[in-house]
Amino acid sequence: MRLVSFIQDGRPGYGIARSDGVVDLGRRCGTTWPTLRDALAAESLGEAERLYGGTAPDLAWDDIALAPVIPNPDKIICIGLNYRDHVAETGRTLTEKPTLFARFPGSQVGHLQPLVKPAISDEFDYEGELAVVIGKGGRHIAAADALNHVAGYSCYNEGSVRDWQRHTSQFLAGKTFAGTGGFGPWLVTADEIPDPSRLTLETRLNGQVVQRATTDLMITPVAEQIAYISAILPLLPGDVIVSGTPGGVGAKRIPPLYMRPGDVAEVEITGIGVLRNPVIAES
Amino acid sequence: MRLVSFIQDGRPGYGIARSDGVVDLGRRCGTTWPTLRDALAAESLGEAERLYGGTAPDLAWDDIALAPVIPNPDKIICIGLNYRDHVAETGRTLTEKPTLFARFPGSQVGHLQPLVKPAISDEFDYEGELAVVIGKGGRHIAAADALNHVAGYSCYNEGSVRDWQRHTSQFLAGKTFAGTGGFGPWLVTADEIPDPSRLTLETRLNGQVVQRATTDLMITPVAEQIAYISAILPLLPGDVIVSGTPGGVGAKRIPPLYMRPGDVAEVEITGIGVLRNPVIAES
Repeated sequence: MRLVSFIQDGRPGYGIARSDGVVDLGRRCGTTWPTLRDALAAESLGEAERLYGGTAPDLAWDDIALAPVIPNPDKIICIGLNYRDHVAETGRTLTEKPTLFARFPGSQVGHLQPLVKPAISDEFDYEGELAVVIGKGGRHIAAADALNHVAGYSCYNEGSVRDWQRHTSQFLAGKTFAGTGGFGPWLVTADEIPDPSRLTLETRLNGQVVQRATTDLMITPVAEQIAYISAILPLLPGDVIVSGTPGGVGAKRIPPLYMRPGDVAEVEITGIGVLRNPVIAES
Repeated sequence: MRLVSFIQDGRPGYGIARSDGVVDLGRRCGTTWPTLRDALAAESLGEAERLYGGTAPDLAWDDIALAPVIPNPDKIICIGLNYRDHVAETGRTLTEKPTLFARFPGSQVGHLQPLVKPAISDEFDYEGELAVVIGKGGRHIAAADALNHVAGYSCYNEGSVRDWQRHTSQFLAGKTFAGTGGFGPWLVTADEIPDPSRLTLETRLNGQVVQRATTDLMITPVAEQIAYISAILPLLPGDVIVSGTPGGVGAKRIPPLYMRPGDVAEVEITGIGVLRNPVIAES
């Protein structure tokens, strides 16, 4: 099942995505579960699929604007330096533990919504990544059990403002600019992706392939990311883990290749789909 | 005016703090503004003070447990390495820009609630800090106007798990353990603290003074913190900026001085009050 969050005439909603439109779950279940995050918390997706999996779409794709898959997560945790070729291109050394940093929900945009190049920087870079959305929360989750806590997967473009990322030792300033995190197009539920280490990820800028990797190359696999993070604090339904980017980022190319207004950035992952975002200038 | 968030019989609430108890604003205004964050967003505090500033307390202090001042902020942004003596004791070099990292809301506890020493670490350290709570949101806020965006101030103990903080280059893992961020006792509204650079901050562990500084020693003052952060993304009402800790942290003492179960940690700031938290072991 594919699930989307969207905006229709200014009203936020969520539903089941199909090729010919969207089944509006928010209209049917919104008083109980106002957002997709709430529906995940109720572990109600199986029932939603049973009840509405065969329902005809209520909304045409043209009627809605897609929102970030989870617009309102309690937390977004990004994994840095999680592919060897990316570690190598940054000149950093491998660490035994995963590198964690945050991004705030207000930095996210949905599929087909514009990524926003900040006016104060010309170093706006792409990072294609697999996004992991938590379904069942928990603390001290064992790696062996961790994938049972995943609601599903999506694509993420973890847009990075490199000069601000380098202002200090801590990445956050360059990682949470408004309108820099593309998240979509939809959540593919975990039953369709039993093993997140068998996916192929490709990032394209204006159609040119700029990153390509298989997810078995992650240094810390998804299950161990969940175990490590949940040792720190409880993971909650709807939490988003952005699992790291492979080599090929624009800042490390010679010459550098940054995103500019008018560009189109895409992140495609097998079994999920294509996240596509035009790039605009901050107004 | 002093404002608190609290739990009474399992119900979250907020109100005006007085020496003899709390005026329950949540009961009076909760359908419109369910939380203190919502009340800040409505810029309704002036009216609340006019209407209820003279009302007798509804709740005795013994009836409630204090929650973190803002239990549900959209974001908590911490400023690292913001006092010269702390930069020196860490062996780091000064940066031109402020060091930003995040903490998640689930890591916070209120006044008199226990700070939780994680079972997986014996390096649980204190960091006394001035907390800044945003009242009026905004993007690209000028430093000269920034203090007009502050709702008020509080004390923060930015409890840090040092070995996890050192796992990688990024501080987040050691900075957001469950139950490690003391935040309270209350918000003192900004009209009572016209200049946040004229405060004295003192951290005590079991009564012993371990940190002491005046806030004029901040490398990046509060107004410039707000300007820098709001260049990145919009600040929202209820957002929390934890403005940095002075020298004297436990990890840099010889021998190190960490918090242990049974200890009592206090952060006192002139014009605000004393945040006091016992320390317990993770169960």
